[in-house]
Amino acid sequence: MSRIDGRTAEELRPVTIERGWSKHAEGSVLVSFGDTRVLCTASLTEGVPRWRKGSGEGWVTAEYAMLPRATNTRGDRESVRGRIGGRTHEISRLVGRSLRAVVDHKALGENTIVIDCDVLQADGGTRTAAITGAYVALADAVAWAQDHKLVKAKSQPLTGTVSAVSVGIIDGVPMLDLRYEEDVRAETDMNVVCTGDGRFVEVQGTAEGAPFAREELDGLLDLAVAGCAQLDGHQRTALGR
Amino acid sequence: MSRIDGRTAEELRPVTIERGWSKHAEGSVLVSFGDTRVLCTASLTEGVPRWRKGSGEGWVTAEYAMLPRATNTRGDRESVRGRIGGRTHEISRLVGRSLRAVVDHKALGENTIVIDCDVLQADGGTRTAAITGAYVALADAVAWAQDHKLVKAKSQPLTGTVSAVSVGIIDGVPMLDLRYEEDVRAETDMNVVCTGDGRFVEVQGTAEGAPFAREELDGLLDLAVAGCAQLDGHQRTALGR
Amino acid sequence: MSRIDGRTAEELRPVTIERGWSKHAEGSVLVSFGDTRVLCTASLTEGVPRWRKGSGEGWVTAEYAMLPRATNTRGDRESVRGRIGGRTHEISRLVGRSLRAVVDHKALGENTIVIDCDVLQADGGTRTAAITGAYVALADAVAWAQDHKLVKAKSQPLTGTVSAVSVGIIDGVPMLDLRYEEDVRAETDMNVVCTGDGRFVEVQGTAEGAPFAREELDGLLDLAVAGCAQLDGHQRTALGR
Amino acid sequence: MSRIDGRTAEELRPVTIERGWSKHAEGSVLVSFGDTRVLCTASLTEGVPRWRKGSGEGWVTAEYAMLPRATNTRGDRESVRGRIGGRTHEISRLVGRSLRAVVDHKALGENTIVIDCDVLQADGGTRTAAITGAYVALADAVAWAQDHKLVKAKSQPLTGTVSAVSVGIIDGVPMLDLRYEEDVRAETDMNVVCTGDGRFVEVQGTAEGAPFAREELDGLLDLAVAGCAQLDGHQRTALGR
Amino acid sequence: MSRIDGRTAEELRPVTIERGWSKHAEGSVLVSFGDTRVLCTASLTEGVPRWRKGSGEGWVTAEYAMLPRATNTRGDRESVRGRIGGRTHEISRLVGRSLRAVVDHKALGENTIVIDCDVLQADGGTRTAAITGAYVALADAVAWAQDHKLVKAKSQPLTGTVSAVSVGIIDGVPMLDLRYEEDVRAETDMNVVCTGDGRFVEVQGTAEGAPFAREELDGLLDLAVAGCAQLDGHQRTALGR
Amino acid sequence: MSRIDGRTAEELRPVTIERGWSKHAEGSVLVSFGDTRVLCTASLTEGVPRWRKGSGEGWVTAEYAMLPRATNTRGDRESVRGRIGGRTHEISRLVGRSLRAVVDHKALGENTIVIDCDVLQADGGTRTAAITGAYVALADAVAWAQDHKLVKAKSQPLTGTVSAVSVGIIDGVPMLDLRYEEDVRAETDMNVVCTGDGRFVEVQGTAEGAPFAREELDGLLDLAVAGCAQLDGHQRTALGR
Repeated sequence: MSRIDGRTAEELRPVTIERGWSKHAEGSVLVSFGDTRVLCTASLTEGVPRWRKGSGEGWVTAEYAMLPRATNTRGDRESVRGRIGGRTHEISRLVGRSLRAVVDHKALGENTIVIDCDVLQADGGTRTAAITGAYVALADAVAWAQDHKLVKAKSQPLTGTVSAVSVGIIDGVPMLDLRYEEDVRAETDMNVVCTGDGRFVEVQGTAEGAPFAREELDGLLDLAVAGCAQLDGHQRTALGR
Repeated sequence: MSRIDGRTAEELRPVTIERGWSKHAEGSVLVSFGDTRVLCTASLTEGVPRWRKGSGEGWVTAEYAMLPRATNTRGDRESVRGRIGGRTHEISRLVGRSLRAVVDHKALGENTIVIDCDVLQADGGTRTAAITGAYVALADAVAWAQDHKLVKAKSQPLTGTVSAVSVGIIDGVPMLDLRYEEDVRAETDMNVVCTGDGRFVEVQGTAEGAPFAREELDGLLDLAVAGCAQLDGHQRTALGR
Repeated sequence: MSRIDGRTAEELRPVTIERGWSKHAEGSVLVSFGDTRVLCTASLTEGVPRWRKGSGEGWVTAEYAMLPRATNTRGDRESVRGRIGGRTHEISRLVGRSLRAVVDHKALGENTIVIDCDVLQADGGTRTAAITGAYVALADAVAWAQDHKLVKAKSQPLTGTVSAVSVGIIDGVPMLDLRYEEDVRAETDMNVVCTGDGRFVEVQGTAEGAPFAREELDGLLDLAVAGCAQLDGHQRTALGR
Repeated sequence: MSRIDGRTAEELRPVTIERGWSKHAEGSVLVSFGDTRVLCTASLTEGVPRWRKGSGEGWVTAEYAMLPRATNTRGDRESVRGRIGGRTHEISRLVGRSLRAVVDHKALGENTIVIDCDVLQADGGTRTAAITGAYVALADAVAWAQDHKLVKAKSQPLTGTVSAVSVGIIDGVPMLDLRYEEDVRAETDMNVVCTGDGRFVEVQGTAEGAPFAREELDGLLDLAVAGCAQLDGHQRTALGR
Repeated sequence: MSRIDGRTAEELRPVTIERGWSKHAEGSVLVSFGDTRVLCTASLTEGVPRWRKGSGEGWVTAEYAMLPRATNTRGDRESVRGRIGGRTHEISRLVGRSLRAVVDHKALGENTIVIDCDVLQADGGTRTAAITGAYVALADAVAWAQDHKLVKAKSQPLTGTVSAVSVGIIDGVPMLDLRYEEDVRAETDMNVVCTGDGRFVEVQGTAEGAPFAREELDGLLDLAVAGCAQLDGHQRTALGR
Repeated sequence: MSRIDGRTAEELRPVTIERGWSKHAEGSVLVSFGDTRVLCTASLTEGVPRWRKGSGEGWVTAEYAMLPRATNTRGDRESVRGRIGGRTHEISRLVGRSLRAVVDHKALGENTIVIDCDVLQADGGTRTAAITGAYVALADAVAWAQDHKLVKAKSQPLTGTVSAVSVGIIDGVPMLDLRYEEDVRAETDMNVVCTGDGRFVEVQGTAEGAPFAREELDGLLDLAVAGCAQLDGHQRTALGR
């Protein structure tokens, strides 16, 4: 069974992680999973939101958005509509939670890091590319903060690494890292966020067509864990570790 | 290891499903999972949204909301703030997807059913109670439509049943159907939506503290499947099947 | 002349006032006037809005809303539309003013009480049921505050009691406590808010059809005062006075 | 007992009604009650809102607003805040209802008239001046429609006249047509809308301080009816009747 | 070549500047350029926005708006639509910038002046009439502040005067101060804001039809400078200088 | 006098125009003026907005926006704030008008082209880079429409070319194509939009500090015209003309 682009079922699309894409941000990455391209910028500011003041702890959050013509058909701008859609909200929250799973807020001190993930071009897997790129931008922002003495050099604000990948069942076959066309056809669609040591941060599986059985779920999880391990390698390479 | 309310780890809270709570709605249920109480009303109207017209298919969607003082501390009304929060959006979408997983839109014909799930009192598990109650309200609305000849008597717009439960790991122990206090303490929190035949519609697991391992995930899934089977029984009893 | 439900023109619908409906709120009441059911919760917080700080005076306010399917036809959620409608605004303001008419803000001290009135099922008279129930929830919240030493035990933050009823002229006959079907047919519609000692807090009369004469107005006021006196009795019974 | 401006308790402020103030509108009036000045413009368009199409009936509605510095202290623009306040909503609805009480929508035919009442300067009684001026603008727009054959010359779309005045109790004395300073001091505040033949369209009385007794209410109504009769005279003079 | 109203190409419409139009505002002007009428009110408050606190400098800003029926066809209220249109934003910013060009914020001290420009009737040139009137209202507010010792008597918060006029090319002829009908026909449309000494504060030229050549631009600028000089005279007369 | 980056006063920053940046859009360009980078995508759809239907004419419009961290300090997202800022509105309108100046809407037929200009990195001149890039994206979309037979091959929907550049006076010296640091220091700031044949589409000059004299204006216009001529060359090269 061959895929549209000739990949095997267990194969990621070509992944690129380009650091330092923006001159302004404390960390910035242009990440691509095939034709999906997401610009992730990390903005660090001293201080924390009011509800966290005096706690000695920092805060990491994320905002995800799509350019209107990132997709095949132009979508209305959420700023023009005057409200953020449910999908945008949901993904922004997912990206933020995923990053915070590897953040030691105490070690970060009272600093805030906002990661903006703007999808410049979409071809499936935008949220997983966003998480994968955002981690690298976050790592750069933390290093910047240490260089600028906002965080102690010996602190370890990051307790691990995190990446994400989509998996799905198409025509009964579990497949890794779905393109948009595949995503549309998938009976079951799952996004999995893993740490570099292979544990889970988020597992979100949805039956698009028929409900799925436990063995199918197990097969998808296996595939996703293997995919995240590869993405972890890409992240390490990009960070020169 | 005993729980706040003396339950065992594998035990649901008392579940009640009261049908016909509202005189106006085509289907209405007041569902409670312990102190969590959700009013689910199903509103059926002939016709479908514009993008679906002429397809011969119906549409089922859901809206979830909380009364301001459903929780321990009063929250601002989303209508007053002028925008719906991310959590509300996310749960509304989840409830809608869960129900659609057991709907044959063709058999429903060009009718629209909106299920409103309003949380009157919250004590953890509001989204899972909402899904469980919404299914019963949906079933009543479908029966109403058949009685009123909007749907053919022989049609089967519902292809199965659906219910949902939360599970989580507290102090290393997987537990079923978390109350609010337990939810806050859980290291890992998972919401699972199952069909009556034990397959999965949605699996959403989140590491609140440390990432979780594959065995932990497996334990939680076992617990959730067993919990949903019990809820399925409550639904059948309520529906007099 | 008999009414739809067999009542006489001077008769209220069956009234129930169920206290302690919610475990979270400082005061909570499920009030029903026939099929109209309103959940009133009183939330007390220490402190007052900024414009009142340092005055030594408290603040009581109210918010009224309807669940989407409280009515015969589902209405759009105001949170989804992103704005509160004029009717909602108007009634929220009316409920707040009515309650404040019997509040001694000095005796309340710098505490704020918000009364949420959420209509679960509507059949005419939702605003009058809301005021009648809200007074009881307010009384419970004040008692709670005294028990918890936020208000001095000897203070009298409530200077009286307040209840409300609708009256209207149908086919030339003044009638008490209109149901929805009656409200629609009424030529003149009036909402009257009275204190327990029979004085007026609010009088809002509207000619729906032809303008009304002074004698008609007088007849409606007589009916309303008598109705409020009965409601006052229901409130006292509920409060065990 | 003398009033700030030397009036007696039963005296209106000087009233002016200037027709034809705007060259664009089908009817336009600058009305003043003392220092309160409201620009009322009536805009007539053929056709009716969707929900009224095919009924053969017209529609009359109103919008009330204040310029930011109509008052002593500048208020934020509602357009800038992005939402209309409760007071604005409430008054817009009151003006619309008051006008519709003297409109025969059948005779108007499928035409829509929107009356905009913009307060240029406020000194109490803005809503009553608005209603009084709006009626004259409405009469001009109806005449315009008859001149332009949109309404039959023999039709009588207006079944009567309507005007409004405020009354209140200050230091125990009922007074007519309150200025802002008086309004602030009033224990009870009432707005009364009457037809030219002395019947009531709206009666809205509010206890600002202590609740009010039936005799007080009766005294206020007497005063208001007499005030409206005078305003009716001003309207007739302005219209050259 | 004669214009609709018989003016020559270099002639302004009749200009009137009526000071003290509102009793509440610190400065208020009803300005008219022919049938265009704008009410400009200046509101002075002590203190400045947060971002300017402690700077010792004041702040001058403006808000422009149109009444719904200021124009030939009624426009929806921006408050009702819930958002300010692009044109309104643009003109508000232009008026504010134009005024600030002649303000010495240091000399103003930490005071804020907001100029509201509300178009009561529109017939072309609303933004230029607004700027011209707003300057006079601003001058009055500054004088008021000096009388009330909020600004030192010897300070000169205004470093010059400012006025504005529109120019355009119609059928190849450059014309001054366009009425609405002319504006619609103009191939090129330019708004020019000048100081009393003939220098430029803003130049905004737009090709509505064909792009324009340098000589055309030069001709329009000549015309505008001459027009502003006349407006400067009107302002001085109004201010009794 | 040397500039920060060593340019002469009459020199543009390095300009790059990269076509085909997005695989989805009918025309897409990544344009850079030094460190300012704007992604311009042209989306063509058949049909026109309702108000233009049946006219036989097409419609071209533009939307401009900035990513939150395009600038040195992160700005809040307009989608999150729920409203578009005045500056965004103003620039979107400017870009749209500039493009329409070279569009023959008749020749375009009833097709709509929306040009999205999203600033990925900002360093001054974002609106001029946006216009310059948008023209190229527009040209590609028009060619695409001709290839796909939506526009006749012989039609000439573009009547010319258009580009834009900023100029300003710094320390008394007129300079071309300001970087952000220069823009902040400029006494006068002007944006000029020219056609390829050297005529003007838009001239927007603003005195940031002191008002400017006619000779200064003339000097800036000369500089801008020369700059646009160079940009026209870059556009032609990019388009392979």
